Formats: sequence, structure tokens, C-alpha cells
Amino acid sequence: MKPIKLGLLGLGTVGFGAFQVLARNQEEIQRRAGRGIEITKVAVRNVERARGLVGNAAVVTGDPFEVVTDPDIEVVVETIGGYDLTKELVLKAIENGKHVVTANKALLAVYGNEIFAAARKANVMVAFEAAVAGGIPIIKALREGLTANRIQWIAGIINGTTNFILSEMRDKGIDFDVALADAQRLGYAEADPTFDIEGVDAAHKLTLMSAIAFGVPVQFDRAYVEGITRLAALDIKYAEELGYRIKLLGITRRTDAGIELRVHPTLIPAKRLIANVEGAMNAVLVQGDAVGATLYYGKGAGAEPTASAVVADIVDVTRLQTADPGHRVPHLAFQHDALSDAPVLPIDEVTTSYYLRLRVVDRAGVMAELTRILADLDISIDALLQKESREGEHQTDIIILTHQTQEKHINAAIARIEAMSTVLSKVTRIRMESLS
Amino acid sequence: MKPIKLGLLGLGTVGFGAFQVLARNQEEIQRRAGRGIEITKVAVRNVERARGLVGNAAVVTGDPFEVVTDPDIEVVVETIGGYDLTKELVLKAIENGKHVVTANKALLAVYGNEIFAAARKANVMVAFEAAVAGGIPIIKALREGLTANRIQWIAGIINGTTNFILSEMRDKGIDFDVALADAQRLGYAEADPTFDIEGVDAAHKLTLMSAIAFGVPVQFDRAYVEGITRLAALDIKYAEELGYRIKLLGITRRTDAGIELRVHPTLIPAKRLIANVEGAMNAVLVQGDAVGATLYYGKGAGAEPTASAVVADIVDVTRLQTADPGHRVPHLAFQHDALSDAPVLPIDEVTTSYYLRLRVVDRAGVMAELTRILADLDISIDALLQKESREGEHQTDIIILTHQTQEKHINAAIARIEAMSTVLSKVTRIRMESLS
Repeated sequence: MKPIKLGLLGLGTVGFGAFQVLARNQEEIQRRAGRGIEITKVAVRNVERARGLVGNAAVVTGDPFEVVTDPDIEVVVETIGGYDLTKELVLKAIENGKHVVTANKALLAVYGNEIFAAARKANVMVAFEAAVAGGIPIIKALREGLTANRIQWIAGIINGTTNFILSEMRDKGIDFDVALADAQRLGYAEADPTFDIEGVDAAHKLTLMSAIAFGVPVQFDRAYVEGITRLAALDIKYAEELGYRIKLLGITRRTDAGIELRVHPTLIPAKRLIANVEGAMNAVLVQGDAVGATLYYGKGAGAEPTASAVVADIVDVTRLQTADPGHRVPHLAFQHDALSDAPVLPIDEVTTSYYLRLRVVDRAGVMAELTRILADLDISIDALLQKESREGEHQTDIIILTHQTQEKHINAAIARIEAMSTVLSKVTRIRMESLS
Repeated sequence: MKPIKLGLLGLGTVGFGAFQVLARNQEEIQRRAGRGIEITKVAVRNVERARGLVGNAAVVTGDPFEVVTDPDIEVVVETIGGYDLTKELVLKAIENGKHVVTANKALLAVYGNEIFAAARKANVMVAFEAAVAGGIPIIKALREGLTANRIQWIAGIINGTTNFILSEMRDKGIDFDVALADAQRLGYAEADPTFDIEGVDAAHKLTLMSAIAFGVPVQFDRAYVEGITRLAALDIKYAEELGYRIKLLGITRRTDAGIELRVHPTLIPAKRLIANVEGAMNAVLVQGDAVGATLYYGKGAGAEPTASAVVADIVDVTRLQTADPGHRVPHLAFQHDALSDAPVLPIDEVTTSYYLRLRVVDRAGVMAELTRILADLDISIDALLQKESREGEHQTDIIILTHQTQEKHINAAIARIEAMSTVLSKVTRIRMESLS
């Protein structure tokens, strides 16, 4: 059988990774796929550099439109990243009847609905395993492996940079700024780390998983996104004392009132497997009604792990292109005409538990007033930790773990607590999940 | 589109689980699959009982051959278990052009080559996600998700009964017999637990994963199988002191000399994620050259987790039956004409590290003699633990962790050690893996 012909957009970390894995494991992959896979054309900005990398294996061009319109190319592999040019290229490739494989979470989280609709119209596939959690086949697990389940929730460590930073903060007791600088020096964080540390990258990935899990459109603009920049080493330490770890989690949950879609630092019990995912690793925990909890763990970034997912998608496309288009795996797991319009809950209406830390005057009656405010708002206390005052100081830290309550209630409580004359600090509030 | 019609063989834990999940999540599954899935006929031994369970939803028959020859049935779901009758039924179903979905690891580990060949000839699929690690989509991950990789090794906790027993032995410091009785009382072990505790069930599952990972035929008869019946609580305790946990692992590895295929109790570093998989849970760790290490965790048994995998297979079959048969996912991941004949290494030729425990007379020179024997055989020592003699006793336990060596060398060393006049016990030998 003739090899399938690919066009590659971009030859950066992901693009060159895919090129290398395809070359190195050519024989192994062909033994599985049943046919060869050939990159015939590569579009890059720096043509000379690319020629040095790919040699005579493929034609190198500086014009990406030459790839997406090439009549010989059956699959376009997009590894450029970004929104504007990429969106145009992907839509042009689709219009020209080409299947698309992409690792571009930002593009799909924002423009996925439009892109998938175009692909459906053109009877082509847009595959994006590499867009979420790198080499971990989580999209496949959610779309196919767990297809029997009514999925209840997903909680994932889906950004390696922030997990590396949090691991460093905990291991070494250092502050965020120091850990970020370490991460940058070691190559775990980019020069401009905003998308990672502010939770945007995780929210892109979560948006895709949420759509697939619950059969809703992608709706990144509805996601609640909070990063780790304001997290103090002190809170990591106190959480530890109480038996918890703090992770940046992407959480999406189906509730009667709507779908939760939120990224934020989260206390989770230290004994959970996912609490022990350290360094730049990723892990996704999925709760389905039939299967119970399953967890998927591995490297969430890097040239070769991402290439692993890109190439798996290429092989899938090679296989499924021969199937009746109506019988392929739908882009968002559910048939396009069977998507639900369940609303995304505003963060104010989300129900969860909370860790609160505040600095108070060490004086009788403070605790009584605090607990009164919480009781007034029907917020019950799960655990309470009052640190001893230091010698000569007359103030102390109080940490409160609450039972479940709606976010608007905790916010109301915090406003009242911060108005107390005996409370000397803003209240630090971190959400908590038991993941059970 | 017309619903796809299934025939169900057996209505026990797995069969009735699949029936219930299909009924409960009918709408969700159809929104994904794009067509309905109907069980139209069920074959059972006790027809009356089955009628009570399925009501009017399906025809109930006492004759399984009526199902596998029914011209209206497109997919046969085999949940009877066992070898003889089941093999005949599966081959008859295939001969009649039906796709087969099965959870029967024993059948496929022993007769898989014959069954897959028959399926290929008849252009039908035999799907078996439920045969390994219950609801965890590990077959899909290995066959499709990691298709870009040269897989290097797999290590799995793939038997929940034994993992439950080992967790109990460790948590409570109890012996194997007591923990087994607990497991039986709690329903985690069967009345006749032989297949589980002797490692046979794990070896069936490992055989299937090994074939898929390395592109070799199933060869259960070549597997090395050692259960947990001889494991002492004392060794679990000593391992713990040295920073290790003992798990029953199924390990398959590609080496230059051949493929390792072995099930046995194994010391693994306590800090590894897989070392913290407790109770009846399963987890599989896979090392691929591109993706690195990925781990898959979840329930490995039970009605609904297994049904989750069975139904996922049914949906896959529904999809892929419209694909060109040459482009479906091959049964053993690799095209049938691209399987390799790499030999399975005899256990004597396997290279790994070892934990040795022996009781010795507490006297000068013993350690010198022991270390001399190991040095003679070129076995180097990684760690050594000598327990203090109890008051009034003149004997003590010595624990040795070795670096890597071939099994035949450790066996030679053990023979010489046991011949020492100062050695008072048999040498307890447990294999060790760093899983890094």
C-alpha cells in the first residue's frame, strides 16, 4: 500500500520532534499502521535551517499555504502554534480536503467549534491528542476508552511548568519568584511564563477535556482561571501540616445546575495518588459512573512526548479515513447534533471546600467572632489550626478548613472577616477538593 | 441509523454488568456512538433467572450456539469465561461473520493466535479491552495511543486480589494466610483463589500486553509465573525499612537477547507512584522511547469497571466495522504479517536485582564469607542490613540487596550460601526493579 503523505507546518520543538520520531521508529510504526508515513513537504520561516535538519527527506518551503493546498498531501500536521495565521491555515487545509493533526490547544479551545464544523462539512478529521497532557493518550481515553460512562468529573495536573514550580516550592520551602527563576533557568518555564503561571494554558486544555467529557461545545471564554503567582510558601507548609498538597488543578464537573470549568490552586489530600505527581509531570484523574476513578500519568510536554501523541493521531487518521465519516470518532466525542447546551456555572455558584488563612491579634474572643461569622453563613468548619504566637508577638496565624459551601458564601464570610478589627491581614483563600 | 444488534453469552458479573451499563447509559452512549446498541439475544444456563433479569428486552435462550449462529446478530459479547466451550463458541461466531467482544484473558492468552487468525480470515474483529486491567483502557493505550513508540518495558499491578492481600499484609503486619482469609471474607478473593494468588491470572494479562507491546505472538506457555503464597510479612517489613514496597508485578521487557515475560513478587522503590497503588486497584506503567514513562490506574475488576471496557469495545467495533479491514487496528497492534519471532528469555537468563534474606549464626567471619561468595560470582552489593540479635539469641537476620545480575548467578550464589554451616535458613530471594 502507498505511504500516506504528510505536510508539516513548523519545525520547532514539536514539529522536529515528530519528524525525528517518525524517522527513528519508521519500521516499528509501519509494522503497526500497515502503511508508510512520509513527510513530503515542510513549511518553515527559516528555510535554510530547515533544509539542514530534514536533508533530502522533504521539500522545504517558506510558504505554509503551499503545504495546505498541495494536492498530494493528505494530512497536514500543524505545529506552528498561535491563533491567527494558524486558524487560517487549518481552515484552508480543511477546505482543501486534508485531515489535520495539531497540538494547538489555544487554537482549539478558542476556535474549536468553528474548526470542527468546517471539518465535518469537508468530511475530514481534526485530531488533537497532543493538545492535552502531551504524550498521555487522555483524549483517546476520554473519547473512546470511557465511552460507556457518564463522566462525572475530571481533575488534572495539566501544566508541567506550574507543577514543577509547586514541587520546588514545597521541597525547598522557597517562594514563588525564586521557584519560577529556577524553572526558567532549567528550561521548565519560558522567558515569558504568563500563559503557564496564570493558568491559561491549563484552562485551554481543560476546556477541550470538558467538551469531550460532557458533550458540550468548547467554551474557553466561560472558564474560571486563576494561576499560582499569589501562592505563598507558607500556605504550602500549612497545607502539608494538615495532610494536604497544593496543586494547580484543572477541574470540570457535571452538576445539576451546570458544568464547572475552573483552573486554580487546590488543596488535595496528600494520600491521593495525584497529590504525589511531582516535577513537570502531568496526571489526569477521571471519574466515570461505571469505571469509577481512573488516572493517566506521564510527561505533559517536550519534543518527543508531544511527538508521540502527534504520530498516534497520524496513524489514527490513516486508519479512520477509510471508515464511513459518520462512524468516525466525533471531534468532541459526541455526535455534533447531540451536543448539550448545559451552562457553565459562574465561579460564584461553584460549591467546594476552602482553606482560609488569616493573621489575627492573639486575644480572647477572636475565634468566637470568626466562628460566629462562618456559622451565620451556614459554613461549617472541618479543621482549625491556630499557630502559637512567637515570643514577644501578640499576633498569630489561623488556618480554617471549611466543609463545602458556595463560593459566594465564602466570599461574603471573607468580607466580614476582613472587616474585623482583630484581623490584621487579607484572608488567603485556597479551594480544596477531596477527589473521592 | 439502525441500532447494532448484539448477542450476549453469559449473564454473570460481567455479562449482567454490561447489560446494565448499556441500559442505564443508553442515551449517553448513543450520543457518542451515533447509533443505538441493542442486546437482542442472551444465552445462559439458567433461563428462568435470566428472564427475570432482562425482562422483555432480549430473547433468552439456554443454547449459546443459537446466539453465535443467529443471522441478525452482528456482535457476540462473550462473558462466560473458561476455555473449552468458549473457544468453540468464539470460533463459531467468527465463522459466522460476527465480531466478538470478550473479557476472557485466559482464552486469548492461550488460544489467541488461533482465534485472531480465524478472525482475520473472516474479516471480523475480536476486541478484548476488558481482558486486561478491567476498566482501564490499557489495550487501547498500548495499541493506539503509544503507536509512535518503540515500547521498552511494561510493569503492571494487574491482579487486584493479590494487591489487596499485599496491602493488608503491609498495613496490618499480618501473614499471607490471614490476609487471604480476609480477602475472601470481603469478596476480594474467590473461594478457590489459585489463579490469582499463584500469579496465573496476571500472567494471562501480561501475555496479552507483551504481544501488543512488542509485536510477538501470544505465548503464555513461555511466561515465568510465581505467586505470592510464600511471601512472609517479615520481608514486607524489611523491604519497608530499606525504602521499598513489595508488589506482584507482571513485567515484560524487550532486551537484545529476547523478551522477558515474568510475574513475581517484586521490590520497588516506595517513592514510585506505582508503589503507592493500594488495595484492589490496578496500575500499568509503560516505558516508550518517545513518550517516556506513562501510567494508567483504575479498578481492574468488578461488574461495572469491566462493563465499561466491554461497552467501549462494542462502540469501537460499531465504528471500525465500516473501515477497510486492512486499516482496522490489528488484534496484536502489529500487522499479522509483521509479527516478530523474538524469543522469550528463560527466567535463568533474566537480569535483575535481588533482595536476599537469610538467618545466620551471629559470629565473626560470616559476613566475610557471604560477601566473598557474591564477589566470586561477580554480584555486587547495593545495600546490606544486619539486624541485632535478640537478647540471649546468637542468631540474626541478614538482608542483602544486590545490583543487577543474571538469575542463574544469583541461584548459584544461593546454593553456596545455603551450604554454609553458619547459615541456618533457606535463603529468601525476591526480585527487585527500580522502574526508572
